[in-house]
Amino acid sequence: MVRVGDEVSNKQVIFRDYVIGSPKESDMYLTTGTIKLKVPEGSNAVLVKNLYLSCDPLMQFFMRKAEGPNGYLYYTPGSAIFGYGVAKVLDSGHPEFKAGDLVWGITGWEEYSLITKTTDTLIKIQHTDVPLSYYTGILGMPGMTSYAGFYEVGTPKKGEYVFVSAASGAVGQLIGQIAKLEGCYVVGSAGSKEKVDLLKNQLGFDEAFNYKEEQDLNTALKRYFPEGIDVYFEHVGGKMLDAVLLNMRHHGRIAVCGMISQYNLDEPEGIKNLLHIGFKWIQMKGYTHRNYYHLNPKFLDLVLPYIREKKMVYVEDIVEGLESGPAALVGLFSGRNFGKQVVVVARE
Amino acid sequence: MVRVGDEVSNKQVIFRDYVIGSPKESDMYLTTGTIKLKVPEGSNAVLVKNLYLSCDPLMQFFMRKAEGPNGYLYYTPGSAIFGYGVAKVLDSGHPEFKAGDLVWGITGWEEYSLITKTTDTLIKIQHTDVPLSYYTGILGMPGMTSYAGFYEVGTPKKGEYVFVSAASGAVGQLIGQIAKLEGCYVVGSAGSKEKVDLLKNQLGFDEAFNYKEEQDLNTALKRYFPEGIDVYFEHVGGKMLDAVLLNMRHHGRIAVCGMISQYNLDEPEGIKNLLHIGFKWIQMKGYTHRNYYHLNPKFLDLVLPYIREKKMVYVEDIVEGLESGPAALVGLFSGRNFGKQVVVVARE
Repeated sequence: MVRVGDEVSNKQVIFRDYVIGSPKESDMYLTTGTIKLKVPEGSNAVLVKNLYLSCDPLMQFFMRKAEGPNGYLYYTPGSAIFGYGVAKVLDSGHPEFKAGDLVWGITGWEEYSLITKTTDTLIKIQHTDVPLSYYTGILGMPGMTSYAGFYEVGTPKKGEYVFVSAASGAVGQLIGQIAKLEGCYVVGSAGSKEKVDLLKNQLGFDEAFNYKEEQDLNTALKRYFPEGIDVYFEHVGGKMLDAVLLNMRHHGRIAVCGMISQYNLDEPEGIKNLLHIGFKWIQMKGYTHRNYYHLNPKFLDLVLPYIREKKMVYVEDIVEGLESGPAALVGLFSGRNFGKQVVVVARE
Repeated sequence: MVRVGDEVSNKQVIFRDYVIGSPKESDMYLTTGTIKLKVPEGSNAVLVKNLYLSCDPLMQFFMRKAEGPNGYLYYTPGSAIFGYGVAKVLDSGHPEFKAGDLVWGITGWEEYSLITKTTDTLIKIQHTDVPLSYYTGILGMPGMTSYAGFYEVGTPKKGEYVFVSAASGAVGQLIGQIAKLEGCYVVGSAGSKEKVDLLKNQLGFDEAFNYKEEQDLNTALKRYFPEGIDVYFEHVGGKMLDAVLLNMRHHGRIAVCGMISQYNLDEPEGIKNLLHIGFKWIQMKGYTHRNYYHLNPKFLDLVLPYIREKKMVYVEDIVEGLESGPAALVGLFSGRNFGKQVVVVARE
């Protein structure tokens, strides 16, 4: 067992260099350094042991120097990559955290991390009667994203027609289930038969389809939404968005969380049906969980009981060990994962 | 002078047949029929003498059978076209209107019209100390559109950076002037030197540019908005929208009134920069004055005093006589008009 003040070996996933196009496994490599398990004197940093790491689509932006979301950090070549994760505090210079606390937030892809930016990215985990890995997903960033997307952006009402793309992903799973609990008609799209089965048979979606098997997405949407779509939760962009625009109803809302199909193209596909925004008074709105941290308690009040009572299903795709991290992360961009992709660094 | 009950001749602009692509003058023709100046017994229709007719971009949708805004009517081949106008009531079966009233709303392109759909499209004109033709523009549908677009959709705050395309048009003129009165920095684009001069020298825009003279719209926008755009009032679509998306700031808003550059293309241009909606949490929202009729009194309270005190400039492009109507209407789609395009049928 390690102790505060020890200098210990620290396995890390290192970023090789900035990426053009789609990230590959070889853009990262493993190395083992050392770290002193102590927060520097006078600093308000937090030193953690990493437990679960989250693979999220936005991480590919950190790998590029080109245009991406402003205000995000980029990876530094030669340093460990970072992302959301669950960790245990070993030492803290921050008044809100103490040794032994469990936290979720931005941390390094390594065994131990010194987290220096703790302003609003580190959240103390209060409820540990649910799997800790859930705080990389349904109870963490993707969960908050789903909650804000549903209640603050898309705002579907009982009886409305809701469409969720990438519906078996970390955000889609929860949005679909909240929509069902709120009395909406919910259809999801995903990229394999297994994912479609998951949506229909375990997550309670009214319908689901494999977009890869559809000749024409407009026809597919008309099949499931003969009266049109009230709210679309956008995670993929491109041709799906274009088809959705044709099928939106008056006063429809499109909550834009991401557009994963477009991130790695040299040039994004052109969207042709934006005229419908004007024709049908559609609202299309981008959002991030980062603007909704204040809703975290309300979000947990809603979701925790459902998880405890097993009224919500949550599917994780868990790989073991930092060594498995780069492949798991890269697999996300081709949809290889089945459910939320998590990397276990340590279980406690 | 005509009297109620007379049967009189009625000059009309008749719709020839549904149009594919851009409407031409020859898609309409003039004829003279007759009309009995009396509302049918038991009907709640209103019989009016038309004074001023408004040329509006949305009228081209009424000429096509293909996809357009749902819920709109289409023109009937062989019948008079219709649109917004100012008229005088000659006879009325409707409790809210009586002979002598001045009204604005949807009426026919003809000397006299029997208006049968009076639900929310006909508004009684209460203030006649301003030019009546203004109720086709700054005090009518485009005015209400500007008001709703500014205060309910785009919601620019004092000091924010505002961009208006088609800024010398009926809606753009007013939005730009409201934005200046509210303390925003306002830049407009238009399609000729004369229009740019109007914006800068008469309407008080901080800057204006001729989009036809710009090699690259992104570069042009960066010149006028080095810190980015907070609110964009969208009237043109296409390449301008794509360039604007690159230049929007975080939490920016795009109020979509129309996309006139796209209406007559066989296929709309593809918009490539929608990823920025997700990156920068942009809201893009389509709207119509039709959802904001209840704000009409507030709107008039704001705008009438400015017009009376000449604190607002309003430019009209007026042609005389129904005969001039088809050319004036078609000219709108190539930007031939200078200011709000109005057709005078009669002055009282």
